[in-house]
Amino acid sequence: MERTLISQVSQNINKEILIKGRVINLRKMGGISFALIQDYSGVIQTVWEKEKEIKMGDAVEVKGSARQDERAKGGYEIVGSEIKVLAASIEEYPFDLSKNILNLQLTTLLDNRTLSLRHPSVQAIFKLYNILLQGYERVMRQEGFSEIKTPKLLGAASEGGANFFKVQYYDKSAYLAQSPQLYKQIMVGALERVFEIGSVFRAEPSFTTRHLSEYISLDAEMGFIAGWHDVTAMLTKILREVFGLLAREGAEYLKLHNAEISQVPEEIPHLKLAEMKKIIAKKYKYNVSEDTDIDPEGERLASQYAKEEFNSDFIFLTHYPWAHRPFYTMPDPENSQDTYGFDLIFKGVELVTGSQRIHLYKQLVDNMKKKGVKPAGLEFYLEVFKFAMPPHGGWAIGSERLIQQVLGLKNVKEAVLFPRDVKRLSP
Amino acid sequence: MERTLISQVSQNINKEILIKGRVINLRKMGGISFALIQDYSGVIQTVWEKEKEIKMGDAVEVKGSARQDERAKGGYEIVGSEIKVLAASIEEYPFDLSKNILNLQLTTLLDNRTLSLRHPSVQAIFKLYNILLQGYERVMRQEGFSEIKTPKLLGAASEGGANFFKVQYYDKSAYLAQSPQLYKQIMVGALERVFEIGSVFRAEPSFTTRHLSEYISLDAEMGFIAGWHDVTAMLTKILREVFGLLAREGAEYLKLHNAEISQVPEEIPHLKLAEMKKIIAKKYKYNVSEDTDIDPEGERLASQYAKEEFNSDFIFLTHYPWAHRPFYTMPDPENSQDTYGFDLIFKGVELVTGSQRIHLYKQLVDNMKKKGVKPAGLEFYLEVFKFAMPPHGGWAIGSERLIQQVLGLKNVKEAVLFPRDVKRLSP
Repeated sequence: MERTLISQVSQNINKEILIKGRVINLRKMGGISFALIQDYSGVIQTVWEKEKEIKMGDAVEVKGSARQDERAKGGYEIVGSEIKVLAASIEEYPFDLSKNILNLQLTTLLDNRTLSLRHPSVQAIFKLYNILLQGYERVMRQEGFSEIKTPKLLGAASEGGANFFKVQYYDKSAYLAQSPQLYKQIMVGALERVFEIGSVFRAEPSFTTRHLSEYISLDAEMGFIAGWHDVTAMLTKILREVFGLLAREGAEYLKLHNAEISQVPEEIPHLKLAEMKKIIAKKYKYNVSEDTDIDPEGERLASQYAKEEFNSDFIFLTHYPWAHRPFYTMPDPENSQDTYGFDLIFKGVELVTGSQRIHLYKQLVDNMKKKGVKPAGLEFYLEVFKFAMPPHGGWAIGSERLIQQVLGLKNVKEAVLFPRDVKRLSP
Repeated sequence: MERTLISQVSQNINKEILIKGRVINLRKMGGISFALIQDYSGVIQTVWEKEKEIKMGDAVEVKGSARQDERAKGGYEIVGSEIKVLAASIEEYPFDLSKNILNLQLTTLLDNRTLSLRHPSVQAIFKLYNILLQGYERVMRQEGFSEIKTPKLLGAASEGGANFFKVQYYDKSAYLAQSPQLYKQIMVGALERVFEIGSVFRAEPSFTTRHLSEYISLDAEMGFIAGWHDVTAMLTKILREVFGLLAREGAEYLKLHNAEISQVPEEIPHLKLAEMKKIIAKKYKYNVSEDTDIDPEGERLASQYAKEEFNSDFIFLTHYPWAHRPFYTMPDPENSQDTYGFDLIFKGVELVTGSQRIHLYKQLVDNMKKKGVKPAGLEFYLEVFKFAMPPHGGWAIGSERLIQQVLGLKNVKEAVLFPRDVKRLSP
C-alpha cells in the first residue's frame, strides 16, 4: 500500500490508508487509546480499540480508515487497524515530548539538542527559519540579485579585528571568513547585484544572549546606487516581502510561540545616530558612553522611541561614526566624523548592518591609511578598485537573530539547530 | 531622471532614457563610435556621433534615445546624447574583455579572477550556477524538504578519514565539516525531510581537475523510505526539474558555452557496481584495480556504456562495496560485502554520492566495530539512534561539478568564483 501523507488524510475519508510517522503523544480514555502521529506534512490522531505495544517517540507505520471527527486536532482522525513499529525507542526521553518543553533550562534543551528538536514548538522555530530562507532566496532574485557563494577560507585576516578563527591550511595558515564583505563587493564589479546566504565565523569569547561563534548571514550588495538611500530602500522592500511571507506561510508556527509578525512600514523611519543619542538622553535620561557608537541599552531605547513616535518595530539609525565603522565604509562628505553607514534596529536589537561603500581607489587607500589598516593581504581587493567599481552598498542580516526577535526567543541560540559558542562545540 | 534597466529598453522606444552600466566593448566605424554597455539585466549598444572620453571597463551613466535597430545585438540600441563616467579604469585590463578569454591559461584567469569575472562568458557560468541554486531550493521545497543550516565547526573529525582542516577554537581544537552527513541524519529524526546548501571543506592535497579544498554541497536526507530505491527515485525527480529549469532559464548562458542540457531520463538506468566492472572489462578491456571501488577511467567507461546502451548521460551505480563506504551506510543484507550505497555518474564523472543509511542503534554500533571506527566524538550522533530513527537515506551533489559537466568546463575551478586548493588561498 502506498504511503498517504498526513496532510492528505482529509482527501481520503472512509478509505483504508497507510501513514508513516513518529508517535508524539499517547493517551488512554475510557478503554480507547489515542496516538498522535507526526510526519513532515502534519500531525494526526489515530484511535485504537485495543491497546497497542507502542511507546512515545516510536517511528511507526499505521494502517487504518480515515474519518472526520470534530473533536480531533485538525478535524480528522484515523481509526487504526494495524500498527507496525519501524524503529522503537530503546531509552526514555529526557523530557516529555507531549508537554511544553520551552520553559526548561536552555542548557537542558541544548545538551539534548538531537531530541529537543523533535518537539513541535522547537520544530516550529526551524520551519519558520526555512520560510525565512525561502523568502530571502525568492525575493532577492525578483529584484535581480544573483546568488553567489564566496570562500570561507581566507588567506589573511583581512577585515582587521582580532576575532578570527585560525585554520591550519596545508603548510600555511588560513582564517575563517567573518563575513563575505570583500568578496561580495568584488562581485558587484561583475554581476552588479549579488546576494549570499552563508556561514560566517566570529571568535567572540563573550557569553551574551545574542552572540554566536558561527551563524548564517544574509548578505547583499548592489551597484550603481545613487546613494545610501537606495540601499535602505531596497532593504525595506526585501524585508516587507520576507515578513509578509513569514506571516502568510508561517501562521501555525507563529501561533505555537504566541508571536505576531511585525508590520514593516513602507518607509521605515530613520534618524542620524547622533540625533537619536540626543533624544535618548533627553527623553529617557540615558547617556550612551562616548567610547562606543551605541550600546544594547541605547538600541533598546531607540526602538522604544520608534514604537512610541512612529508605531514602528523598525528604525534605521544612520551616519554611524567614522571611528566605529570599517575602512570600506563611505565617509560622509559633509562631516568627516560620520559615514554613510547604518544599522537597522528591530524590536530593540541591531538586526542589519549596512552602508554605502567607498568605490574610488584613491579614496579607499587614503581612508585605509587614516585608519591605520595595512594593505597586506588585501591586495586582491584593492586591485579591483583600479578598474572602475561603480558606486555601491549593501547589508548583512543576522538570520538567527531575525527569527529570535520575531518569535521573542530569549536567546539567539534557540534559533540555531546546533549552536556554537566558547563552550559548546557539540552536538 | 530614473534609471531604466537595459532589459526594459525595448519598452521605451523613442523615449529619452537613462541607463547605467559597464562598457564592455568599444569600436569605431565610419566616424561613428559604438559602446556596448552591460548592466545586471542585459547588454545594449550605444551609438555616438562624436567620440567620447570613455575607456573599456568604465562604469558609466548614459542618457539617450532608445530605438529599434536590427543590426544591433538584441535588436535595440540607444542613440547617446550624454555620457558620464561614474568610475574610470585607471589601469589597463590584463586581457581584452571584448575577446574570448576562455582559451587563456586557467592560471591567468584565476590569478586575475576579480577581472575575469567581468567577462560575459565567465559571468554566464555563475548566472547558470545561480539558476542551479534557485532550482534546488525551489524543487526541494516542493517535495516537502525543509532547508537547514548545520554547523561547519565540529568538535571531532567525526566521519573518520585524514583530510580534515584543523581550527584553533578558543582553547580547544575544532575541525571543519567535510559534509553535513551526521547532522542531516539527526535532522531526519526531527523534520523527516531536510536539505542543505552549504560549504564543505576537504584537505585534499591533490592537483586534479576535479578536486577543491572548499566547495558547496547540495545535500538532502529523507526519512520513512521503503528502501534505497526511494532515494534514487527522489533524486531523479529533483534532477529532472533542476535540469529543466537550467535549460529554460539558462538558454543564453548555455549558448555562450555551446552547451546543451542533458535530458534526465524518467528512470535513470542503474546497475550494480560489480556488474558494471565486469561489463567494462569485457566490452572495453579495462580492469578497475581491485584496491578501489571504481576509478576515474572506470567512471568514464560506465558513462560511455550508459550512452551507448541507454542513450543516457546519467547512470546509477549501486551496491558499492562495504569496504569503501562509510560506517553509516546500510549493508546489503543479501551480501555483506556490498552496501545500499550508490553513485550517480554524469558524463563520465561521479556527480552524486548517496545511500540508504543504517537506522537501528545496534546495527550501527556493530558496523562501526567491524570497521574499527571509534565512538569517541560521535556520542551525540550515536545517541539519537536509541530514539527510533526511521529508515532513511540521502545524497550529496557537488554543485560546482554539476555546472562543470553541464558546460563542459575542463577544470572544476572554473565553476567556482574564488577557488581554493593547496596553492590557492587568494583572492
